[in-house]
Amino acid sequence: MTNKIAVIGLGKAGLPIASVIADSGFEVIGVDIDERKCADINSGKNPIPEEMGLGELIKRHGGKDLIATTRYDDAKECEVFIIIVPLFTDENNNPDYRIIESAFRNVGRLLNKGDLVVLETSVPPKTTEERARKWLEEESGLALGEFYLAYSPERIMTGFSISRLEKFPKVVGGVNKESGQKAFVTYQKFIPNLHLVSSARVAEFIKIAEGCYRDVNIGLANELFKIADELDVNFYEARTYANHEYCHIHLPSTGVGGHCIPVYPWFLVNDMEKRGKFDYAKLLRTAREINDEMIEYWAEKIVLELECMETNRPLNELKICVKGISFREGVKELYHSRNLALAKLLMERGLDVYVYDELYSSEEVGEMGLRWIEPEDADLVFDSFRLTLKARE
Amino acid sequence: MTNKIAVIGLGKAGLPIASVIADSGFEVIGVDIDERKCADINSGKNPIPEEMGLGELIKRHGGKDLIATTRYDDAKECEVFIIIVPLFTDENNNPDYRIIESAFRNVGRLLNKGDLVVLETSVPPKTTEERARKWLEEESGLALGEFYLAYSPERIMTGFSISRLEKFPKVVGGVNKESGQKAFVTYQKFIPNLHLVSSARVAEFIKIAEGCYRDVNIGLANELFKIADELDVNFYEARTYANHEYCHIHLPSTGVGGHCIPVYPWFLVNDMEKRGKFDYAKLLRTAREINDEMIEYWAEKIVLELECMETNRPLNELKICVKGISFREGVKELYHSRNLALAKLLMERGLDVYVYDELYSSEEVGEMGLRWIEPEDADLVFDSFRLTLKARE
Repeated sequence: MTNKIAVIGLGKAGLPIASVIADSGFEVIGVDIDERKCADINSGKNPIPEEMGLGELIKRHGGKDLIATTRYDDAKECEVFIIIVPLFTDENNNPDYRIIESAFRNVGRLLNKGDLVVLETSVPPKTTEERARKWLEEESGLALGEFYLAYSPERIMTGFSISRLEKFPKVVGGVNKESGQKAFVTYQKFIPNLHLVSSARVAEFIKIAEGCYRDVNIGLANELFKIADELDVNFYEARTYANHEYCHIHLPSTGVGGHCIPVYPWFLVNDMEKRGKFDYAKLLRTAREINDEMIEYWAEKIVLELECMETNRPLNELKICVKGISFREGVKELYHSRNLALAKLLMERGLDVYVYDELYSSEEVGEMGLRWIEPEDADLVFDSFRLTLKARE
Repeated sequence: MTNKIAVIGLGKAGLPIASVIADSGFEVIGVDIDERKCADINSGKNPIPEEMGLGELIKRHGGKDLIATTRYDDAKECEVFIIIVPLFTDENNNPDYRIIESAFRNVGRLLNKGDLVVLETSVPPKTTEERARKWLEEESGLALGEFYLAYSPERIMTGFSISRLEKFPKVVGGVNKESGQKAFVTYQKFIPNLHLVSSARVAEFIKIAEGCYRDVNIGLANELFKIADELDVNFYEARTYANHEYCHIHLPSTGVGGHCIPVYPWFLVNDMEKRGKFDYAKLLRTAREINDEMIEYWAEKIVLELECMETNRPLNELKICVKGISFREGVKELYHSRNLALAKLLMERGLDVYVYDELYSSEEVGEMGLRWIEPEDADLVFDSFRLTLKARE
């Protein structure tokens, strides 16, 4: 039986699963490029304090059953390799596979007959069967069949990742039948709510489809919010009573940020357009546009509010505070943050813009080229998470 | 206390609520233009047999506490009037208010001081406060304040209407505060799960927003189905494991039919476009287009399947059976049926098209200008509800 499992990538998704695997009785070798993070983990210190329950697991296993290292060679005795590294996209929303390719090629060099490799990073469907297989075969000199390859999408949510691993349904699918079976039996040892699906491709599609559901439904919430506002209907009151067992209207926002939801629809949109199927992803594209354009809507609202303030001062001398700049409340992460984009848009329009976020210090804000302010010192505060505008009395 | 309640319109939505009100101890006068239906109800016969539990209520109250009539004058002693008549739309998807206006004007002529009128038909937001109020004031000579006016959207689902009235959350809102209160207190006597919202307009918006959620999510399911098919992924398998507490991917279809869901988004789209807010309803419009275009997608699939059949016969000599023509399975209703539209589209393309539906006889099918066939006699059967294609072996 496999007792040594390697987890490649100890980020917000990788470290929780590495810790859960260690807690299930396995020796885990975690590989990450960040030396300081590895040192922290090995000394029992949790580098992601906002992750509930993680601190305890790191304390219990860090440097013991969970060894963090920057060297792939330290994982050479492992028989299972879980790859959970970031996938970024370029300015045309196409995936940049370099990090993922590097992880697979490094694992490929360590691969022995009978080993299992599982990808967890969210990727466009077919990535595992086409790209990952090729990378492994090229580096290992082995052919699929001599090793096993599967896909199992992470379904974490920062802050709740440990409980998600313990309770939430997780799926796994292989690039061939044996790989699916092997990965399923292995994962069952540390994932209680596990489901085997018919292929890696189906598992990849599942994760992307979930993201598309979220993005389209946030787009719908944003659209209904704008309409309700135009009709002078309180959107939140209407939503409360519209929603029931069969109706799940989401919450409006300044758009959709982070590494996941705003990115996944493009995987399908771009793929369909490459195939000449331009009308196969038009809802996904429209929802993306609506969500990205919400900052224009809010900028207009803010300007209207400034115009209604009776101050006798020019608009561009009124201090605006964008309260909340991270992409999601309580998560210190700015990737594709629409709140930050809104602050920058208002600045471009010549307004006197400041920001406030309890997760960021005034120094950190300054390093982003923005100015920090206490909300009570601003003439107008836009609360990015509550979508409220409040003028100084 | 009010003991006599009029229900105007004894259709699929009106008759269930009329029966539930009668069963709650009120005398109900039901007004409908259909004399034969009225006679049936008065003799205890249920004109909507597919409605579970309705037969029992009609048997118990029809002709006794529930009197059906074609004459508005028979309702002149009522103090509460519930209007639940159809609202059709024209070819530009604009509402045709004639039936609803006629009902309100007829009720207006009977109105006494202190009476309550509640609209249940799904309508564009503001209809109750602007149109209905004017119709009542013009006919009654009374001003709002002398009578009460509210809106409470029906949330029935054919087949489950009685249980929906008994269990499902229902909302009510007045055109002014007193009307809302009055309608809430009255409805509480026969609707257990009732919620008062701040205005008739909010209540109108709630019903339309629910329909938009459904239409957009069916559009998303159809789009994801097409993408999955293009990627050779089994959509249904993916959907099973993608869905969980926070993910509710709907089922794909030939489009969206019936009187409700395909109509409501246009109320908002047309209203926003009239206001010059062309970008405020683009997701709703796109979802409508996707759903309406699904018949083109299925027609193409059917033709491809015919081309793959090795019969040596010309395509237009192969008998195609569209199995299922009603807009929804188990509901004998053809309004905006996309299954029927698909059969007609295939005929326009010169194919040899037949239909089968267990709810319709061959004579009824003939009257629609279509030809009836037993599925086993066709060369290719398209099951509209299961979206499967089956060639004769």
